[in-house]
Amino acid sequence: MAPGLPDKKKAEDEQSSKKNLIHLCNPHLEQMKEDVLYHFALGTGTQDFPTLFGDVKFVCVGGSPSRMKAFITYVAEELGLRTPGYDHPNICAGTDRYAMYKAGPVLSVSHGMGIPSIAIMLHELIKLLHHAKCSSVTVIRIGTSGGIGLDPGSVVITRQAVDATFKPQFEQLILGKNVIRSTDLDEQLANELMQCSNEIAQFNTVIGNTMCTLDFYEGQARLDGAICSYTEGEKLQYLKEAYDAGVRNIEMESSVFAAMCKLSGIKAAVVCVTLLNRLEGDQINTPHDVLVEYQQRPQKLVGHFIKKYLGKV
Amino acid sequence: MAPGLPDKKKAEDEQSSKKNLIHLCNPHLEQMKEDVLYHFALGTGTQDFPTLFGDVKFVCVGGSPSRMKAFITYVAEELGLRTPGYDHPNICAGTDRYAMYKAGPVLSVSHGMGIPSIAIMLHELIKLLHHAKCSSVTVIRIGTSGGIGLDPGSVVITRQAVDATFKPQFEQLILGKNVIRSTDLDEQLANELMQCSNEIAQFNTVIGNTMCTLDFYEGQARLDGAICSYTEGEKLQYLKEAYDAGVRNIEMESSVFAAMCKLSGIKAAVVCVTLLNRLEGDQINTPHDVLVEYQQRPQKLVGHFIKKYLGKV
Repeated sequence: MAPGLPDKKKAEDEQSSKKNLIHLCNPHLEQMKEDVLYHFALGTGTQDFPTLFGDVKFVCVGGSPSRMKAFITYVAEELGLRTPGYDHPNICAGTDRYAMYKAGPVLSVSHGMGIPSIAIMLHELIKLLHHAKCSSVTVIRIGTSGGIGLDPGSVVITRQAVDATFKPQFEQLILGKNVIRSTDLDEQLANELMQCSNEIAQFNTVIGNTMCTLDFYEGQARLDGAICSYTEGEKLQYLKEAYDAGVRNIEMESSVFAAMCKLSGIKAAVVCVTLLNRLEGDQINTPHDVLVEYQQRPQKLVGHFIKKYLGKV
Repeated sequence: MAPGLPDKKKAEDEQSSKKNLIHLCNPHLEQMKEDVLYHFALGTGTQDFPTLFGDVKFVCVGGSPSRMKAFITYVAEELGLRTPGYDHPNICAGTDRYAMYKAGPVLSVSHGMGIPSIAIMLHELIKLLHHAKCSSVTVIRIGTSGGIGLDPGSVVITRQAVDATFKPQFEQLILGKNVIRSTDLDEQLANELMQCSNEIAQFNTVIGNTMCTLDFYEGQARLDGAICSYTEGEKLQYLKEAYDAGVRNIEMESSVFAAMCKLSGIKAAVVCVTLLNRLEGDQINTPHDVLVEYQQRPQKLVGHFIKKYLGKV
């Protein structure tokens, strides 16, 4: 027993801490002596996960490896954890599937593009956090998206991730059969992030639904892919129906992200900047420097949230 | 009229050449002045596609950027196109979404993991080949996979790409509705590749069906993901049903690859090495150097095919 800690208080703390541990929905894992996280090039037999990752409280994930490296540099600076000249090493240097960086309690991980790519990363990330005995972890996706009815550069905090028919669900194929999973995200966390955006007051932010698709071109009603079988009128009708269903942006990862975090008892949010207004076009031909500044917006918002949460604002 | 070329012959040549051009199934593209291939960081307004890519006859695609760089170095050497000390530059250096390398008539492009990631790449690749006025192009995916009932290290040339219920089809969501597409691949090309494997006689190769899934863990009946709701018995039954349906390996890109190439009139094949036998386990814990050698097998096979085709064997 910890010195000076009454039995009842200790029991409550243990229970509360257990409640906030990562929930692994897989009884088979207990029987494994070693776990190889193949796509991270990490394993419990070769790395000491509790020492390496035990203090992680925030995981930020995004598609592009270079953007996730830029984020860890930014957040380390903001949290006063940056040593001049220090280059954060890629923890997954043994593979080019994903990149991972760490600064204090913050882990930054790339996930590539699309539901399958982020799903592989999340399976291995959730196991990593479990093996490391992390507790009270918040996972936030910071990404890019196409907006609907918003000025380019606006940021959308996702209320619900919806599918291509605007339903808040994710269909997971298991042994050839469809299993429907909820894509609810943490409402309180979304509101806290909205409050952070109000505080920094640098760009327009809204809370809205996010449509998650399996494809960037036909799946998002673009007219500029290699294949297109619909008219501009049909495209606009579909996007307007999405808008009427509360959809404010479209991306390719949020539904499985929400579903897997919910099943694993992880508080999660999705914060994406919109690179264009899809009611006005399909091609992303905004100048490079403007796109770079847009892409920093979710980083700034989430950086501020972490700083505030750690009492450093 | 070309000098000395009879009218009839010229017309036949033109027709034959037209027949082998990339078929763009999108009438909207004709109306676009400029086409930005956003995820390649290339555009018709900034690059001269016919000059850069007009001579391309073979495109090899695979998940990992470093593997696709290794492939271009290997194939340049094999074709006698390699200058000592020359480092093939990444044509898509302006982005970290995909990597692209070129050596003579061979283009090597990475596609990340999963159907959505390869679909974005293929939309932009097919448009690139069209804008470059390429003709008679063969596209081959060289990748890794899980085998069923085969010794690890065996190579599978795909007969048909099948879905999680073993049907040779790909479901594309368009404007929220499901469209079923055929995943037939070129039978003659598969047989030619099989012949190449016999000629080099270095590893076991079979022609079989390839199951394409949206997920590496639950979608492929693994017991070692963060989430698993089935028993080992149910897993094995599913994999045995797959085997009985002619499935010899499982990966995550072949169905949309086959469907999009077929629609665009491109001759296509899928050649994947199996890293493990899924009837015997789920984890990929083979030593790194053995895995590296396995991953070179599809490269060797396809390298030999290209060399033979160009009369350099």
